[in-house]
Amino acid sequence: MAKELSPLDLEGIDGYWRAANYLSLGMLYLRENPLLREPLAPSHIKRRLLGHWGSDPGQSFIWVHLNRLIHEQNLNMMYISGPGHGAPASLANAYLEGTYSEVYPDRGQDIEGLRQFFRKFSSPGGVGSHCTPELPGSINEGGELGYSLSHAFGAAFDHPDLIVTAVVGDGEAETGPLATSWHSNKFLNPAQDGAVLPILHLNGYKIANPTILSRISPSELKSLFIGYGYSPYVVEGDIPMEMHRTMARTLDRCIREIRSIQRRARDAGDCRRPRWPMIILRTPKGWTAPKTLDGHKIEGFWRAHQVPILDVESNPAHLKILSEWLSSYRPEELFDQNGQLFQKFRDLAPKGNKRMSANPLANGGLLRKPLRLPDYRNYQATFSKPGTKYLGNTTVLGEFFRDVFRENPDNFRLMGPDETASNRLNAVYEASQKAWMADILPEDADGSELSKNGHVMEMLSEHTLEGWLEGYLLTGRHGFFNTYEAFAHIIDSMVNQHAKWLEKCKTEVPWRAPISSLNILLSSTVWRQDHNGFTHEDPGFIDVISNKSPYVTRVYLPPDANCLLSVADHCLKSTDYINVIVADKQPHLQFLDMDSAVRHCAKGVGLWEWASNDTGSVPDVVMASAGDVVTIESIAAVAILREHFPDLKIRVVNVVDLFKLLPESEHPHGLSDRDFDSLFTMDKPIIFNFHGYPSLIHKLAYRRKNHGNLHVRGYKEQGGLNTPLQLAIANQIDRFNLAIDVIDRVPRLQCTGAHVKEWLKDQITDHLNYAREEGLDRPEITDWKWPF
Amino acid sequence: MAKELSPLDLEGIDGYWRAANYLSLGMLYLRENPLLREPLAPSHIKRRLLGHWGSDPGQSFIWVHLNRLIHEQNLNMMYISGPGHGAPASLANAYLEGTYSEVYPDRGQDIEGLRQFFRKFSSPGGVGSHCTPELPGSINEGGELGYSLSHAFGAAFDHPDLIVTAVVGDGEAETGPLATSWHSNKFLNPAQDGAVLPILHLNGYKIANPTILSRISPSELKSLFIGYGYSPYVVEGDIPMEMHRTMARTLDRCIREIRSIQRRARDAGDCRRPRWPMIILRTPKGWTAPKTLDGHKIEGFWRAHQVPILDVESNPAHLKILSEWLSSYRPEELFDQNGQLFQKFRDLAPKGNKRMSANPLANGGLLRKPLRLPDYRNYQATFSKPGTKYLGNTTVLGEFFRDVFRENPDNFRLMGPDETASNRLNAVYEASQKAWMADILPEDADGSELSKNGHVMEMLSEHTLEGWLEGYLLTGRHGFFNTYEAFAHIIDSMVNQHAKWLEKCKTEVPWRAPISSLNILLSSTVWRQDHNGFTHEDPGFIDVISNKSPYVTRVYLPPDANCLLSVADHCLKSTDYINVIVADKQPHLQFLDMDSAVRHCAKGVGLWEWASNDTGSVPDVVMASAGDVVTIESIAAVAILREHFPDLKIRVVNVVDLFKLLPESEHPHGLSDRDFDSLFTMDKPIIFNFHGYPSLIHKLAYRRKNHGNLHVRGYKEQGGLNTPLQLAIANQIDRFNLAIDVIDRVPRLQCTGAHVKEWLKDQITDHLNYAREEGLDRPEITDWKWPF
Repeated sequence: MAKELSPLDLEGIDGYWRAANYLSLGMLYLRENPLLREPLAPSHIKRRLLGHWGSDPGQSFIWVHLNRLIHEQNLNMMYISGPGHGAPASLANAYLEGTYSEVYPDRGQDIEGLRQFFRKFSSPGGVGSHCTPELPGSINEGGELGYSLSHAFGAAFDHPDLIVTAVVGDGEAETGPLATSWHSNKFLNPAQDGAVLPILHLNGYKIANPTILSRISPSELKSLFIGYGYSPYVVEGDIPMEMHRTMARTLDRCIREIRSIQRRARDAGDCRRPRWPMIILRTPKGWTAPKTLDGHKIEGFWRAHQVPILDVESNPAHLKILSEWLSSYRPEELFDQNGQLFQKFRDLAPKGNKRMSANPLANGGLLRKPLRLPDYRNYQATFSKPGTKYLGNTTVLGEFFRDVFRENPDNFRLMGPDETASNRLNAVYEASQKAWMADILPEDADGSELSKNGHVMEMLSEHTLEGWLEGYLLTGRHGFFNTYEAFAHIIDSMVNQHAKWLEKCKTEVPWRAPISSLNILLSSTVWRQDHNGFTHEDPGFIDVISNKSPYVTRVYLPPDANCLLSVADHCLKSTDYINVIVADKQPHLQFLDMDSAVRHCAKGVGLWEWASNDTGSVPDVVMASAGDVVTIESIAAVAILREHFPDLKIRVVNVVDLFKLLPESEHPHGLSDRDFDSLFTMDKPIIFNFHGYPSLIHKLAYRRKNHGNLHVRGYKEQGGLNTPLQLAIANQIDRFNLAIDVIDRVPRLQCTGAHVKEWLKDQITDHLNYAREEGLDRPEITDWKWPF
Repeated sequence: MAKELSPLDLEGIDGYWRAANYLSLGMLYLRENPLLREPLAPSHIKRRLLGHWGSDPGQSFIWVHLNRLIHEQNLNMMYISGPGHGAPASLANAYLEGTYSEVYPDRGQDIEGLRQFFRKFSSPGGVGSHCTPELPGSINEGGELGYSLSHAFGAAFDHPDLIVTAVVGDGEAETGPLATSWHSNKFLNPAQDGAVLPILHLNGYKIANPTILSRISPSELKSLFIGYGYSPYVVEGDIPMEMHRTMARTLDRCIREIRSIQRRARDAGDCRRPRWPMIILRTPKGWTAPKTLDGHKIEGFWRAHQVPILDVESNPAHLKILSEWLSSYRPEELFDQNGQLFQKFRDLAPKGNKRMSANPLANGGLLRKPLRLPDYRNYQATFSKPGTKYLGNTTVLGEFFRDVFRENPDNFRLMGPDETASNRLNAVYEASQKAWMADILPEDADGSELSKNGHVMEMLSEHTLEGWLEGYLLTGRHGFFNTYEAFAHIIDSMVNQHAKWLEKCKTEVPWRAPISSLNILLSSTVWRQDHNGFTHEDPGFIDVISNKSPYVTRVYLPPDANCLLSVADHCLKSTDYINVIVADKQPHLQFLDMDSAVRHCAKGVGLWEWASNDTGSVPDVVMASAGDVVTIESIAAVAILREHFPDLKIRVVNVVDLFKLLPESEHPHGLSDRDFDSLFTMDKPIIFNFHGYPSLIHKLAYRRKNHGNLHVRGYKEQGGLNTPLQLAIANQIDRFNLAIDVIDRVPRLQCTGAHVKEWLKDQITDHLNYAREEGLDRPEITDWKWPF
């Protein structure tokens, strides 16, 4: 039960906190004289003052109190720092716990180490003022705000032993992604998952503005969190000793409640959604800073956000204020002669992996176990010959995923914003239902597929799902995100940031072990939006991905079910990538048997001999494609051309792995010029039918020798309510326009092909008329088969 | 005061509601026999059943009740439909009010008109199943969810007379953007702005899942909205007549409260933030549909989301159920012999512009008044010669904006996520402070710049700001969005959708009048992230923009303050575009005096003679640039080259209007090939220093004759904590690497330039060493001036 802190405890906690605050302040200012063993002089000050003080003392306050709890109760706890630029707090604590020096031996536990530690902070080539991958113990980038809480829940899923303390900044709390992520508590099962303890850090201010949540009434604020489903506890004040007592009492109570919720669920089988505790911690922004400077309020105001006193090098009075401020933490009581924290304080920190800065879950690759994967070949689509059978590609994938769930019941989650069934992955429900801790009604038994233990995650928030998945992967798990292609843009920025995280880890943070790749399936794609229309037509997410580092990005466009299986299996085995797979949900023509698909996907790009007729010779034209629907149209165009021009030599090339088109100098998957030239020829026309915006292909392939003959079709923002063929024709990716493209570009067809071209134009008119009249495409379009 | 509805009122309201429901159902199913004057036969059914029933009856229920209020109290009201695919309700009501037939005379108020109205719904070439620009009275696209409430608040700002009813779907309510937009009430001033009446439509289900808010306890739900600062009123049930009474009573009360809040603020000057009313309307999903079908629950379950009975054409029993369902609305009591709604029901709808489907604010271009713009030339930067003075470009822009505020106190808003001061636009506060209805503390007087009447909007939610701005523009106002460049990706998808909206309006909806352009200023750009590092480095937002229709997108990269002024003025005058301006906030070199800047920006791309030395001849190399920082580096490279190789003929070209690089066939701003060739030459090397990802330039310019000689430098995802020069060197956009590029590409320098190249490499090493040591760039870099 709760006991009050003894005076000795209090003194220890306060000392440790002062040490953390001293270090945070030192980081901002000092390049020399790190422990103030000499009177502070201008020469000790950094040449450029960059960094953030505002949330540091509050965050260190939380950290030191969590340390006590971890220590006393042997907790397995992670700390997630939401307030963007509060890294000095996390850095200080990682240093005090020794972790920092273990990871970066040049910043050891002595005066010289401390000096280096200060100097490297927020200076060129050094460490950031927000939490970055270089910071041990962290899984949350502090650069872009809004994801701390979803990361925390993602980390807690399937880690029953873990408590994740998520410190949410009140600035961050204004973002949309954060505002809805409070509802994550409707998806966390106290029996199988760990706990999240959110602490809303009511600092009061952002960069230059008050925060909304700090300027509403206390009763509104409490109502809000009761409404979100929590039991809020308020810790408020600015007198350290009183605050220590209150915080300790409150944290004790929260952990007690968490344990009691878990016991009820685990021992008594009580699976009702609990009211999890959360803390509202209201402390002054820049707590313990000077109250004012030159008549301007500092502590408790936005002026404490960054470096509160800027001209200390040139202004002796301000230097004196800084000196007094640094001294106010009494470093001489905290660090011994060599510059190491006194043993009595060190004893207060948890040890080894119990340190939040060293929790192995924050370096999840260390704990990652590969998935137990069923043989994807068992799910293969079978058919007698290419281009004759229709099948839903994602339907087949769903069956594979179902068995991935069966084999990995607590190590794999599938995310989808209310679209998993719509994307035809519904076979997964046979193995795992949708996580749902909110109320369940009798009618749900008829197909809602809800379960408290489910591992399919569905919430209408792409942000929350992406945040959960990132947290889950970063702590060593596996998963897949499925979403409508157009709305993947909602998480452009999150995925950008995750790519940046992965790239840093791969290239500059050797101690971070590889984590499972972030796998994103884009379905319900641009070409099949019959009744959704223009708003649902946007294949540009892969353009965003193509700007990120080639070391961490992969884009796959499997043309059929067997290729999709092969690609998905590959992605599930891979680490440290962002794999984007584009595959529509509707039934589509199948092309490759399993062996061919495996070979094709392994190469990433290949010549389809069964559809080509240029064997052993130079073709007249290359018909290339990347994507499912566009490949069908391209193949149908080839059939038309072969029927009308039996002598025309056509080479059919299909691209699965989009970055094959880049030169090998630009991407590890890039084809050599020699291979590219031999596949696409040096001088023949290439009619490339592309799933996305055509310019992306040019962006990737402009360096290639035959680029001048590369003619790309793709989505050019021409859409509306259309039948599939109407949409294809509007964007000229349809079989008829492709055939016309060939006639226009192969010199010897320009005379002989004139009548065929007229016929093709008539076909377009006829088919458009039919679709307009009937609201459907003609059966000869929807049921078209490869005729050779 | 509130009076109960009389039986006659009740009957009228219910009849009108039945008419709307009948129409919604007819849209989903009927291609013939629109008023069921013959027994329903399979031939009357549409060939393909596409559309959404789920939220239609609930939304029509709201609409008809609002009609009564508008009528009785002569309200000016807009209706915003949040539930994505609930367009049948809005369509039905626009039709019943006559607006639809006025706008689309082929869908008149008779049987044939009704038949066409039904047929065009959700079929190729027809109208969407979510609200689209083609729908009169709507300003909210229903394709992507999450923005209804921010649109509603945006519409209400500066329209004191207006009440915007925002129907929020409980699916949509799960999105991040929606979840935080409830806090918009902290930014709406009852004295100067209109009111927003949010109605959370607790339908219970999404596509295939229950909604979170429908599965938490009623007390949690109420707490949530009290926490958000509202007074929630619950209207719950499924018995129509009871629901009509409750809804009428509740709406009366809400309007009374709104009026009372407004009176207190406007007459009594009480400017405290009020508790605005909101309604929680809990009705069954698909209300009034059959309870069950083949043993599966329909009404009140997710199975009512789309078309609840799919096989009516082939299944006689189901056809019969549909027939009974249609008949249950008793169309014979509602429509006269010719198919027109009976007069007694028509009398219930508001008239003329009071109809929500005809509110002129929903076609804001009609009401738009051009801004009163001060002469931007008055804010010009002056200097003796190009390349010798440093000035903050956005600082200058801030002064211009300040006077835009002065001239347009109730017609212009500036949005920024806590970054307006950081982006150096703070001069605006002299004219208009930050809107803030939450608590204000005494210390705020010292620089927080808060005011209940402010028109600078700052909330840490890019989504909410973008939604407000869209709503504000769509109702006829003007504005500017300023944000950190990297985090513009947060609103990629919103801007995409707004581009699609504008494109449809421009090309297919002639009755929509042009609205003010969406102006986005990207500042704190990639090249100046000294202490923010890698996470803040992403210039890819303009890549996303470049995929949208050329008819609505513009990207400007003004190289200096005068160009920025000229561009900003141009954007503020323009309509129906998305204008993206990229301009960093730090002090940068100034190049063009005002007259030159105006000429340069009018052309969009131009030869800078003052920096070139190729007068009247063919140059050896073209040094091109687009962007502020990269132009400085390019010009500095030119200076180095001219010093070392006085005979080298260099042409300096600067691009302000990025889409000038596209062929004229692809973009209305595109240069003709002739102009492009004459500027960039047909065969000389072009060293193009670009602000963003280099591939974007290739994507735009790959069709140009001299593309083979186009060598682009730009951001290639190489970043970290860097000095500006370190970052530039890491990405090779710096003066030294550019000079090396020239030496490598101009044949006659390849021998003679060898020693200079060595010297340049040494320069790079020296400067990197200095920056590493000092944490700063050398003064000769930061204070560099054009030497000629």
